Amino acid sequence: MNTYIKDQLEKFQQENRNRGRLLVSCPDQPGIVSAISQFLFSYQANIIESSQYSTNPEGGVFFIRIEFECPGLKEKAKDMEGQFAAIAEKFSMDWKLTHVYHVKKAAIFVSKELHCLLELLWEWQSGDLMADIALVISNHEEARDAVEGLNIPFYYIPANKDIREQVEEKQLELLKEYEIDLVILARYMQILTPKFVAANPKKIINIHHSFLPAFIGARPYERAHARGVKLIGATSHYVTNDLDEGPIIEQDIARVDHRDDVDNLKKIGRRVERSVLARAVKWHIEDRIIVHQNKTIVF
Amino acid sequence: MNTYIKDQLEKFQQENRNRGRLLVSCPDQPGIVSAISQFLFSYQANIIESSQYSTNPEGGVFFIRIEFECPGLKEKAKDMEGQFAAIAEKFSMDWKLTHVYHVKKAAIFVSKELHCLLELLWEWQSGDLMADIALVISNHEEARDAVEGLNIPFYYIPANKDIREQVEEKQLELLKEYEIDLVILARYMQILTPKFVAANPKKIINIHHSFLPAFIGARPYERAHARGVKLIGATSHYVTNDLDEGPIIEQDIARVDHRDDVDNLKKIGRRVERSVLARAVKWHIEDRIIVHQNKTIVF
Amino acid sequence: MNTYIKDQLEKFQQENRNRGRLLVSCPDQPGIVSAISQFLFSYQANIIESSQYSTNPEGGVFFIRIEFECPGLKEKAKDMEGQFAAIAEKFSMDWKLTHVYHVKKAAIFVSKELHCLLELLWEWQSGDLMADIALVISNHEEARDAVEGLNIPFYYIPANKDIREQVEEKQLELLKEYEIDLVILARYMQILTPKFVAANPKKIINIHHSFLPAFIGARPYERAHARGVKLIGATSHYVTNDLDEGPIIEQDIARVDHRDDVDNLKKIGRRVERSVLARAVKWHIEDRIIVHQNKTIVF
Amino acid sequence: MNTYIKDQLEKFQQENRNRGRLLVSCPDQPGIVSAISQFLFSYQANIIESSQYSTNPEGGVFFIRIEFECPGLKEKAKDMEGQFAAIAEKFSMDWKLTHVYHVKKAAIFVSKELHCLLELLWEWQSGDLMADIALVISNHEEARDAVEGLNIPFYYIPANKDIREQVEEKQLELLKEYEIDLVILARYMQILTPKFVAANPKKIINIHHSFLPAFIGARPYERAHARGVKLIGATSHYVTNDLDEGPIIEQDIARVDHRDDVDNLKKIGRRVERSVLARAVKWHIEDRIIVHQNKTIVF
Repeated sequence: MNTYIKDQLEKFQQENRNRGRLLVSCPDQPGIVSAISQFLFSYQANIIESSQYSTNPEGGVFFIRIEFECPGLKEKAKDMEGQFAAIAEKFSMDWKLTHVYHVKKAAIFVSKELHCLLELLWEWQSGDLMADIALVISNHEEARDAVEGLNIPFYYIPANKDIREQVEEKQLELLKEYEIDLVILARYMQILTPKFVAANPKKIINIHHSFLPAFIGARPYERAHARGVKLIGATSHYVTNDLDEGPIIEQDIARVDHRDDVDNLKKIGRRVERSVLARAVKWHIEDRIIVHQNKTIVF
Repeated sequence: MNTYIKDQLEKFQQENRNRGRLLVSCPDQPGIVSAISQFLFSYQANIIESSQYSTNPEGGVFFIRIEFECPGLKEKAKDMEGQFAAIAEKFSMDWKLTHVYHVKKAAIFVSKELHCLLELLWEWQSGDLMADIALVISNHEEARDAVEGLNIPFYYIPANKDIREQVEEKQLELLKEYEIDLVILARYMQILTPKFVAANPKKIINIHHSFLPAFIGARPYERAHARGVKLIGATSHYVTNDLDEGPIIEQDIARVDHRDDVDNLKKIGRRVERSVLARAVKWHIEDRIIVHQNKTIVF
Repeated sequence: MNTYIKDQLEKFQQENRNRGRLLVSCPDQPGIVSAISQFLFSYQANIIESSQYSTNPEGGVFFIRIEFECPGLKEKAKDMEGQFAAIAEKFSMDWKLTHVYHVKKAAIFVSKELHCLLELLWEWQSGDLMADIALVISNHEEARDAVEGLNIPFYYIPANKDIREQVEEKQLELLKEYEIDLVILARYMQILTPKFVAANPKKIINIHHSFLPAFIGARPYERAHARGVKLIGATSHYVTNDLDEGPIIEQDIARVDHRDDVDNLKKIGRRVERSVLARAVKWHIEDRIIVHQNKTIVF
Repeated sequence: MNTYIKDQLEKFQQENRNRGRLLVSCPDQPGIVSAISQFLFSYQANIIESSQYSTNPEGGVFFIRIEFECPGLKEKAKDMEGQFAAIAEKFSMDWKLTHVYHVKKAAIFVSKELHCLLELLWEWQSGDLMADIALVISNHEEARDAVEGLNIPFYYIPANKDIREQVEEKQLELLKEYEIDLVILARYMQILTPKFVAANPKKIINIHHSFLPAFIGARPYERAHARGVKLIGATSHYVTNDLDEGPIIEQDIARVDHRDDVDNLKKIGRRVERSVLARAVKWHIEDRIIVHQNKTIVF
C-alpha cells in the first residue's frame, strides 16, 4: 500500500476509534428500540445514525442499524457484547457489533476488462473507499501494472472450466492467508463452484452487466441490442449458487438509442457498471446491508 | 372537444399549414441526401429539422426524417408526391410525406386504472399533445366522468375472454367510423386478437408496467417486489402478436428500496408509466418513429 | 369533495386511527433516543419508522421523527402529551405530537397557469395525497371548471399590487373560516405581504420555476435561455419575506439543449415544477419536514 | 505514451483515414443542404451522420455538422477545400473541414485535486477518449506519479497571483512546442489572464463545481451547503474573460440532502465534475460543438 493511502487509512482509524455499529434483526414487537437505546445509553454511547425497517409492523421481522460514538469503545467492547447477549436472547435477535476501526480486508477478482477494478482503485486512492484492498487475483495479466503500481500484491492464476477446483483451492488459500472479509468480482469472467460460494457466505459481491432479471447470463449487451431496449443497466448482487439470482444490492441504468451499436452499449455500460459496483462495495464496507431471504435491506 | 382545446388545435393547424415531413428508408449509398435535398429545394422548401441514421454505412439500411417548411404546401402536395416517386424508385425507397395540419385522430382504450388516460388528457388540455382525441373506449365505467367532462365521446364496451370477437368487432367499427389513425392502450387490461392487431399495423401503442424484457406478462410489480429489484420501470411499445415483444419505443425507470411494498411500487410506477406513454404517443404523432425489423428508430 | 375521494379519505383515517408521529429537536446528548423510546414503550406504542439527524454529534442540534402505532391513541393522547412534557423539559426539546387521522386542510392559490394545480388534484383523486383540499383561491377564472368539477369551493379574488391588502384580508378570512393548515402557491403570481407571511409561519409552500439560487425573481426561463444552460429546474420552498430565499424543500431538473426555445423550456419545466411541488406538499402533509435556521431536514 | 494506448490510437486513425467532418454556419435560406450534399456526392462521399439547427427558420442562423466517409479523402482534401470555398462564398458561410485522423493534441492543467485528471486519463486508457494527451502542467506535484506512469510529460510550474505573467509565458511556450489544439482546465485553481485566453479562443475548457449560473466564483460547495440546496452540480464551459460566464457545454447534478456536510458535497460533486468534464472534452474532440454568441450548439 502506498504511503498516502496508508496515512489516510490510519487517520480514519484514529478518528473512528470510538465508533461502533450495531446491527439487529428479530421478530417485531414493541420495546425493541427502547431496550437497545437504553443499553447504549448505559455505556454513555451517543447514537449518530439510526435506521430501522419492519417487513410488517404486525408480526413481521424488525431490522435496525445503529451507528454510535462510545468513549473508550475498545476497552468496553467485550463487556458490551456480554451484556447485549441477554437482551438479544430476550428478543430472539440475530445481531452483530462491529468496530469502524477494524477496516475490512478485500480481495478483488478481475479478468481482462479493467474498468471496475480501476474505479475501485480510484475511489480507494481518493480516500472514498475505506477498506484495505489486500490483493488482486486475476486469470489474466492485464491488470498487473495498475495493481502493482499501487503496491498491492497481484496474483496471476490462470483459470478455465477444467481446472476450476485447483484454481479455487489456491484462491481460498490466499483469502485465508490475507484474512479476507470481502471478495469483489470486478468483471471476473469465471463461474464459482458451490464449494467456493459456501465458504464465503454473503461475502462475495458481483457486478452483472444488465438490469437483472433482464438478460441473465452471457452476452447481455448483445441481447439488449437485439431486443432494441432504450435503457441498459448494471446490477450488483451477492453471489449465491443460482447464477445472477443472488440478493440485489444496487442497480442503475443509462439511456441509449437506436444509434448505439453493441460496442457503444458496452462503452456506456462500463460507466454504469463501475459506479454500481463501487456503491455496493461501499455500503457493504459500512455495514449498511442486511440480507433477508433473497433480498437486501440497505440502510 | 371543448372550445379552448379546439382553438389551440386550429391555431396549431394554421401555423403549420406549410409544414411537411418526409420519411424515407432505403439501402444506403452515396447521393441519397443530395437527391432528397435537391428535390425539396426545387419546391423552395426550407429544411427545418433533419435526422438520419444508417444501420451500417457500408451496405446497410438508411433512414431519414426531414421536417420542412414549403410555401403553398397544400397546393403543391400532389405534384410533389408525383415527382418524388421517381426518386424513390431510383433508390428503392420506402417513403411517406405527411402534412402537419393533418392532425392525427386517436382512440384511447382504458380499463379501471385511469392514470395513463388522465396524463394524456392533461397533456392534451395543456396544448402539449397535438392530436384529435376522438373517442375513449373502456370495459369499465370509471373513466366516463373525466372523458365526458372534456366533451370526448365515451364508449362503454364490457369485455372478457369469451366475447372477445364481438367486442373487437364493435371496436373496429368505431375506429372506422371515427377514421382513427392511432390506438393507445392506456392500461387496457384485455389481450387483443391477431385479427385486431393485423387490422392496425404499427398503429397500436401499449404501455407495459415493467422495464421489458424483465417481467413480461402479468403482475410485474408483484414479481419485481419478490425479486427485490432496486429499480422499477415502464415500457411503451407497438403491439404485435407476441405479448410484450413488440418494438420498444420508450422506457424509463424509478428508484425504489426495501421499504417499498407492492402498493408503493404501483404508486411510484404510475408516475413512470404515464410519462413513458405520453412521450411515446407524442413521438408517434410527430412522425418521429420508424419501425425497422423489431426495433424503433426514434428521430 | 366527491364521494370517491371522501371514501378514500375516510378509509385512510380509519386505518390510521392509532397512528401518531413525534417530532423532536433539542441539543444533542446521549440518552435522548433512550428516553423517547422508553416513553413510547410505556404506552405500548410500536415504532414503525424512525429517522434522526444531528448537525454535529458533539454539541450540535439533534432531530428525530418517529412514526408509531399505539392502541387507543385517541384516548391516550392527552395523557401522553402531559407525560412527554416532563421529558421535553429535561432535554430542552421543541416537539410536537401529531395524529395521522387529523388530515391536514389545504388551500391552493393559483393564477392562470394550471399545471401545478392539476397535478395536485390528480394526485388527490388518485388517493396519493392524503389531505383535505378545502378551497382554491385564484385571481383569475381559468381554474374554476377543474376545481368545481371536483366539488371543491373556488374563490375568485382579483388581485394586483394596488389592492394587495384588501385581497389578503379576504384570503386570510377564508383561511380562518376553513381552518387551513397549509397554503400551497401553485404558480400564484402575486407577491405576499410580510403580514400575510407572518400570519402563516412555515405553512406556505411555493414553487419557483428555476433551480434556486439560480434565476431568483421574474422570468427565469427567459434568463435560462439567454444564458444557454443545459439543465432547467424547479424549486419548492417555504415562503419567507425574502423573495425566493426561504428554506428549500425539494428541487429537480430536466435536461434541455440548444434546440429548445423559451416556449419549450416552459413546456419541459412544467413537468418538473408539478412533480417537485407535489413531492414537497406530500412531505409536509406527512410531517416529514423540520425547518432549522434557513434549511429543511426532510425525513 | 504507453504502447497499448499508442496501438489503439493508430488503429483508430487507420480505421478513420477516410472520415471527414464538415461544420458550417450561415444565414438560413432554402438550398443550403442541397448545395452541401451535392458537393459531397460529387466526391463520392457517403454521409454518415448529419445534424442541423436553425435559430429561426425565417431569417435566423443555420448550423450543420456532417460526418462523412470519402474514399481517398487525404488525396482529395485540398481539392475539396478549394471547391467548397465557392459554395461558402455564395451562402456567406463560416466553415471548417476536419479530418478524423488528425487526432487533437491536448494539454491538461491541474492543481492539487486529481479526480478530473484521473478520469480523463482513465477514459484515455480505456480507448474512450481519442486524443493525444501531450502533456500535463501543474502548479503542484501531486499529479506527477499518475501522469509519468503513463509516459506523459509532466511540467511542474509553480504559480500564484504575483508571477502570473511569467508562468503563463512558460505555459504558452509549451503549448506552442507541443502544437496543442485544446487546453483542459481539470480543476486548475488559477485565474488566466486575458492575454492567455485571447491566445486560445474557444480552445480552453474549464470545469466549474456548481450548476452555473448558481454559485459563480469561489467555494461553491460551501455556499451550496449554506443555502441548503437539494441538488449540487457541475458545469463545463469554454473560458472567456468573464469568470464562469463562458459558453456552457455541459452540466449535470447529483442529489444531496440535509445529512451531507460540505465534505460530503465535495465527494459527491467529484463524481459529477469528472463525468461532466469528460463529456465536454469528448464532444470538443469530435468537433460536435459550435459556439454561437455566448452559447453552444452541441451536435
